[in-house]
Amino acid sequence: MKFNADGLIPAIVQDQANGRVLMMAWMNRASLESTIATGKTHFWSRSRQKFWMKGESSGHTQKVKDIAFDCDGDTLLIQVEQTGAACHEGYRSCFFRSVSADGGDSITEPRLKDPGEIYGKK
Amino acid sequence: MKFNADGLIPAIVQDQANGRVLMMAWMNRASLESTIATGKTHFWSRSRQKFWMKGESSGHTQKVKDIAFDCDGDTLLIQVEQTGAACHEGYRSCFFRSVSADGGDSITEPRLKDPGEIYGKK
Repeated sequence: MKFNADGLIPAIVQDQANGRVLMMAWMNRASLESTIATGKTHFWSRSRQKFWMKGESSGHTQKVKDIAFDCDGDTLLIQVEQTGAACHEGYRSCFFRSVSADGGDSITEPRLKDPGEIYGKK
Repeated sequence: MKFNADGLIPAIVQDQANGRVLMMAWMNRASLESTIATGKTHFWSRSRQKFWMKGESSGHTQKVKDIAFDCDGDTLLIQVEQTGAACHEGYRSCFFRSVSADGGDSITEPRLKDPGEIYGKK
């Protein structure tokens, strides 16, 4: 695998059951190793400069089913079994908006959970 | 959309017909605008520092069916109708290898074309 100058590699996460692309996040070597060792996705947050496990706050963990990498070895594609909503905004996928023909955007899937419900009850 | 410090945004490309994630490449503002204007995917090559249209050499173009973006606005997910093989190595998807249980890797899909056949006949 090729990590970039910051020691990171982008990881695309896909729901193995239905092919929906759920999110894209960054991994460093430690988070990739933890992902392989535990079978749960772990990432590196660039904004928080922090190692994190997906679902550590929300309970919406991702069970790893397959880890693929591309021809250049610089991007990962991870198949998972998703618990709950992948997006912190309560949607199944972070890609819940599409560009519309008029140049605006529209929401393309229903919200599964209220974000307050996901993070507010702790 | 949020472009990074280099003016780039990662674009995940997915085959709309079957959900297969085909590739991930980078776009700058001009390539995103050309993608929207022409309905064919355009990218920015970081290694070649060059604007390119997918399929300009191989003929394996991608017809854009939908452009989604994630909750942070810093990643694109583009649904396409793929002509031929998305990968320059002749596979349908660039993600043709997966990590195996023994820590090695294995090829998970058949090669559609010989790379020499794609690029050699011009």
